[in-house]
Amino acid sequence: MEETKSVTDGRHLRSLHTRHKLLEAAKEVFREEGFHKATISQIIKRAKTGYGTAYVHFTGKDDLLIVLMEDVMTAFYSIAELPFTPASRAEAEELILYQTTAFLRMAESERKMLQVFGEAIGVSASASQKWAEIRERFINRIAQDIAYSQQNGLARTGLDPELVARGWFYSHEMYLWEIVRGEHQAQLDEIAKTLAAIYTGGLYS
Amino acid sequence: MEETKSVTDGRHLRSLHTRHKLLEAAKEVFREEGFHKATISQIIKRAKTGYGTAYVHFTGKDDLLIVLMEDVMTAFYSIAELPFTPASRAEAEELILYQTTAFLRMAESERKMLQVFGEAIGVSASASQKWAEIRERFINRIAQDIAYSQQNGLARTGLDPELVARGWFYSHEMYLWEIVRGEHQAQLDEIAKTLAAIYTGGLYS
Repeated sequence: MEETKSVTDGRHLRSLHTRHKLLEAAKEVFREEGFHKATISQIIKRAKTGYGTAYVHFTGKDDLLIVLMEDVMTAFYSIAELPFTPASRAEAEELILYQTTAFLRMAESERKMLQVFGEAIGVSASASQKWAEIRERFINRIAQDIAYSQQNGLARTGLDPELVARGWFYSHEMYLWEIVRGEHQAQLDEIAKTLAAIYTGGLYS
Repeated sequence: MEETKSVTDGRHLRSLHTRHKLLEAAKEVFREEGFHKATISQIIKRAKTGYGTAYVHFTGKDDLLIVLMEDVMTAFYSIAELPFTPASRAEAEELILYQTTAFLRMAESERKMLQVFGEAIGVSASASQKWAEIRERFINRIAQDIAYSQQNGLARTGLDPELVARGWFYSHEMYLWEIVRGEHQAQLDEIAKTLAAIYTGGLYS
């Protein structure tokens, strides 16, 4: 079977387009129905594609959700994974306050999809597994930043960076779920200031 | 209808005894089967009581679980609600390290029932509501202790005690669930030391 390059390129593009349509449709249906009530049929219908085509791309609604989780969390990672090479304690404290503020504000702006994720984590083993991976990625990155600060004489030593990172991330994670439930809307910046004050006060002095 | 006092006392005692038998049976069945798989029939059979009698005491397995949650959490509250009137920063730090250590150790010793609660929180609205109440009780008490320390010139001021307490409790809550899943067993005291070091370092200096 002979194909010109433009034909295969065309197929590839159509395939990407179908994938994108399915993800957008899934996002809409999940937002409207929640995770549990949403069906793969609704999503396929909304995407105006066929069952056979849809199952080439995704094995079911859990699979679609996990890709959507990754998309949203990529924006969160971009905050956690900002370059962190402070030259002073003051700079470290400023960076940390910025990261915490941005994290909580993003929880607020992504509320609707995070609500769907929260629901899915409770009922889908694969979504729950995905969330555990997301958490560990955050904790690993925070632990690296702590180790950097310890090695450069900015943060107190004698504490395991991973255990510190874990406790620190947990405060963010739990506040995130409360924000997703519609709490604390008027207090985001004050929460960030409070968390950062205790943490940097304890770690950087 | 005339009854002598000893007859009503006897009934009251039998009633208490039945209630106790049902709770003990529920504890056993939940530990063996988990929350979702456990049935009220299994519990009634194990308690060697009748359906009618059982339903005088509890409306169903959710109701039994909530009483068991309260029982276990009473032991945790006794840690959180220790008298907290430190005369110095050093004393405050010592009390806090003690409380955190005791909390994590109790998570370890109550692992099996907490595992049942964790499962129930995911599937039962009343269990989830109960857990939210438990969390708020902890946070309120911690906030009181922080306010005490601020008023007595031991802790830094300018931070909302409730927001500080919330972030602090969240670290404990998330570590609790990890301990319940069998993680961190060898590290409990190190985790307590780490959490307390950051927290007291940030709040008490």
